[in-house]
Amino acid sequence: MDEPPRFELFAFWRTSATYRVRVALNLKGIVATERFVDLDAGDQRSDAFLAINPLGAIPAVLDRGAGQSRAPLTQSLAILEFFDEMYPEPALLPTDPHGRARVRSIAAMLASDTHPLITPRVKKYLTGPGGFDDAAWRAWQVHWFTTGLQAVEHRLASEAETGGFCHGDTVSIADICLASILVVMRVFKVDVTAIPTIERIMRACEAQEAFAKANPLIQPGAPR
Amino acid sequence: MDEPPRFELFAFWRTSATYRVRVALNLKGIVATERFVDLDAGDQRSDAFLAINPLGAIPAVLDRGAGQSRAPLTQSLAILEFFDEMYPEPALLPTDPHGRARVRSIAAMLASDTHPLITPRVKKYLTGPGGFDDAAWRAWQVHWFTTGLQAVEHRLASEAETGGFCHGDTVSIADICLASILVVMRVFKVDVTAIPTIERIMRACEAQEAFAKANPLIQPGAPR
Repeated sequence: MDEPPRFELFAFWRTSATYRVRVALNLKGIVATERFVDLDAGDQRSDAFLAINPLGAIPAVLDRGAGQSRAPLTQSLAILEFFDEMYPEPALLPTDPHGRARVRSIAAMLASDTHPLITPRVKKYLTGPGGFDDAAWRAWQVHWFTTGLQAVEHRLASEAETGGFCHGDTVSIADICLASILVVMRVFKVDVTAIPTIERIMRACEAQEAFAKANPLIQPGAPR
Repeated sequence: MDEPPRFELFAFWRTSATYRVRVALNLKGIVATERFVDLDAGDQRSDAFLAINPLGAIPAVLDRGAGQSRAPLTQSLAILEFFDEMYPEPALLPTDPHGRARVRSIAAMLASDTHPLITPRVKKYLTGPGGFDDAAWRAWQVHWFTTGLQAVEHRLASEAETGGFCHGDTVSIADICLASILVVMRVFKVDVTAIPTIERIMRACEAQEAFAKANPLIQPGAPR
């Protein structure tokens, strides 16, 4: 009998952070067993899932090769760096410290400065205790997507290191984070104008099978 | 004549992300020229600063040793990883990939899941277009500090890798991020209960000169 895959990915079709991990796995050719956690049904708060990740957060990666007692890997950027260290080819970061810092900085502008503001838990607060109606929530979403992407556009359009992708002509963690924001913007039907460099890089990403296969709309659980 | 320091740090006394960089510089014994950017006065939007960092974001680090044309380093975690790669001693990350992933994950829970929600730009939106009064803003602050720190407390209290610091008995990026949240909570006079492990680790951090010297309240520009 074949061994089961070493890694299990706890995932939901729509989330930006799950998408990042899927793209990285695809790029590196790592097969993981995917476990569906239905965020719309509250599965992340079920006893079954809390026994796996007491934080109730996805994506989470279980490494079955490293012993059963280990806590799952969490936080998408930490997971991407982990896979990049464990499976160096193809590299998701440049080799020089300045280049690595630039890629990580662009990734953080997207994954730390932008994405946390439009997550379901923030929506729940703002449309609950925060008193936001649908229009106010939508204005908030548009504001932060626009602020984040236009700042990244400014960098990509002005910095010499930008190439066919965010940093030179190879895919990095920055491209994965960039694409992860654009795919959820589509799900939310939010549009940001005046980001031509980003749109060009997004087309280059989506021409790659690793990105195309991670498209949220073709994952298990996605609406038909 | 002495050479000026290689690095310039654009900083403000109160910000959590600037504090992280100061602690890392102190731990590694790197001397940087500090440039004061008065966020309360809007210096980050001045022509002089935008010429240095068009994004108007601090902390930003200029590396004078790497040529004048290079863009500044930005995003605190990217800056910490950069200094850790350039000056490996003392290491701010463990050597094993699982340990590194755990440290980066805890750091992200603080720097990505918690801190971005209570930044000045979010306050500006919520107390402007968002319609929050002072009490609503304070409730928001308390909610996210509490959510973030209690999730980290749960991990630190339950995971075997926790030691005198977040990961074993040496300071890591996780401790720097943890302390960076606690110091700004004090500035904002926000209190979170039931975090004994965090409080123990914070005491261990503040017993170290590198953390004590980075205290926001003793930096240039801080109120007397």
